[in-house]
Amino acid sequence: MRGAILYAPGDVRVEQRDPPKLIEPADVIIRLAATCVCGSDLWPYRGIEPVSQPTPMGHEYAGIVEEAGSDVRNIKPGDFVVGSFMASDGTCEICQDGYQSRCAHVEFVGAGGAQAEYLRVPLADGTLVATHGQPGPELIPSLLAASDVLGTGWFGAVAADVRPGKTVAVVGDGAVGLLAVLAARQLGAERVIAMSRHESRQKLALEFGATDIVAERGDEGVARIKDMTGGYGAHSVIEAVGTQESMMQAIRSTRSGGHVGYVGVAHGVQLPGEEVFFAEVHLLGGPAPVRRFLPDLISRIENHSIDPGKVFDLTLPLDQAAEAYRAMDERRAVKVLLQP
Amino acid sequence: MRGAILYAPGDVRVEQRDPPKLIEPADVIIRLAATCVCGSDLWPYRGIEPVSQPTPMGHEYAGIVEEAGSDVRNIKPGDFVVGSFMASDGTCEICQDGYQSRCAHVEFVGAGGAQAEYLRVPLADGTLVATHGQPGPELIPSLLAASDVLGTGWFGAVAADVRPGKTVAVVGDGAVGLLAVLAARQLGAERVIAMSRHESRQKLALEFGATDIVAERGDEGVARIKDMTGGYGAHSVIEAVGTQESMMQAIRSTRSGGHVGYVGVAHGVQLPGEEVFFAEVHLLGGPAPVRRFLPDLISRIENHSIDPGKVFDLTLPLDQAAEAYRAMDERRAVKVLLQP
Repeated sequence: MRGAILYAPGDVRVEQRDPPKLIEPADVIIRLAATCVCGSDLWPYRGIEPVSQPTPMGHEYAGIVEEAGSDVRNIKPGDFVVGSFMASDGTCEICQDGYQSRCAHVEFVGAGGAQAEYLRVPLADGTLVATHGQPGPELIPSLLAASDVLGTGWFGAVAADVRPGKTVAVVGDGAVGLLAVLAARQLGAERVIAMSRHESRQKLALEFGATDIVAERGDEGVARIKDMTGGYGAHSVIEAVGTQESMMQAIRSTRSGGHVGYVGVAHGVQLPGEEVFFAEVHLLGGPAPVRRFLPDLISRIENHSIDPGKVFDLTLPLDQAAEAYRAMDERRAVKVLLQP
Repeated sequence: MRGAILYAPGDVRVEQRDPPKLIEPADVIIRLAATCVCGSDLWPYRGIEPVSQPTPMGHEYAGIVEEAGSDVRNIKPGDFVVGSFMASDGTCEICQDGYQSRCAHVEFVGAGGAQAEYLRVPLADGTLVATHGQPGPELIPSLLAASDVLGTGWFGAVAADVRPGKTVAVVGDGAVGLLAVLAARQLGAERVIAMSRHESRQKLALEFGATDIVAERGDEGVARIKDMTGGYGAHSVIEAVGTQESMMQAIRSTRSGGHVGYVGVAHGVQLPGEEVFFAEVHLLGGPAPVRRFLPDLISRIENHSIDPGKVFDLTLPLDQAAEAYRAMDERRAVKVLLQP
């Protein structure tokens, strides 16, 4: 089969690879209907995370079960499935509490590389959710989005305790930030402030339900949020970048007693204890337990109440993965869908 | 009147001072029934916080209202009152959400120095709670404890989301940690693990409801908590010290999806972003909004369902404040009550 391999920063190649095989009896093999490039794929692509060896890339997936291991009970060949980038057993106490991304037996599904024709998914029963029948092609982008960026933005909103009537600010206008806007609105927020200074992304944020746009960032961005909220700060702030500046912007934009949900993978962040102490805000973040939200998200997509697939503003054949990375790296595209 | 003044690290003197006067119409003047030395008073006493000028000390208080300003409605002269160390208006959105210690008009009550005969309390209506009639002398230590250490330990437990049936660990065996044990038990925790290696404090922890004692600290302490919780970590961990080591011990002792409530005033703490991200625990802390809990705590004390006053293991006349500081600094006493 063909699959994308990162050889070094900036060097992605689509090559012939051995197709994955069942290894454990809880595994399934999926034929991918669509895959894509994640903002987090750009960390090693840009050399910010080391690339120590040729690495199969991609961890977002939706497709049809080709083969299932002997222990798999809930999923069968022919099912169209969506799963999280983290495989989870679904039975440990952490999974039962809804934090499947930190399951006691967690495995990174992307280890096999989802930017490919086929993917092995471990712990299939605890990881995958089948759609209600075969989805039409118009739903595929949205179902693919559910496997990471939508699920991650949704977790950001839930972690930030978004509730009806509240004011929410979103730091970061990548795909996750934009879908956090959608999530906040779906969860009933009255006011959703998207912090973005890129016109095309501002437009998408508004389509997803943002009520306000703030182009300032850093201290100026914080001051704008305070101005807009009677001096208090937002009730809920979703951080979807992962840098020191964005984390501090999120914490400082939140009122005392409010909530920060942070889903940007932290890179080089140090939180100053004294400031965090006196900020007195709730903090929750980490790799999103997408599995917790998948049944609900799939239903919302199937009944057309949300259209997160709009976040894909470029579609390319898998063979052009290198161009997909370039387009995202250069911010020419918000998110690129790859067709295997 | 007499009052304690910190002149320099290690140099506390009780001197004749001008008694406080009403300044704002929302103020009251209290005649103190009892006051005490706080663990946080030891930071400047030990020179870890700078002492730039002679500073009136103390911020914990209970006593009888001597005089009330013209705007005070809920409190009248003769009332026995307990209040938080932070004055709050009770009306801003932050107060309404229960975070009175971060009120939009917050003032530090201790600015006037509560280790004295009289104290001015600003924003009296939003800050003070009157007892139901005059308390007997046996209740005074517990009512005094409510104004900070009990209220702070209680907030730690609430911030750590302590619930019936859960396993809670408490990092720190000072007065706040010990009263966090009491709070956790009162809030229904099934198992309360006190982390302490001092025999007298272990004993008090057990009296307050600890079910287990762990003497190890740091990585060894974390390993013991994991061993005791099926490898997962505690559901709720209360941090009551404020150092880098204690914060990391608290975070690492908590299961993913669990909650850390931190109430030790942070000194020199830096939280590593990557580790905190992948720990995926809820974090909430800061100066305790004691006022939120006071009506409930006062009722529990009045009906003898809790006896937090036990935390005072030494009582001295106000004139011996210097010895009170020494006894706490040298850990000869958990907490010293001062009689004005």
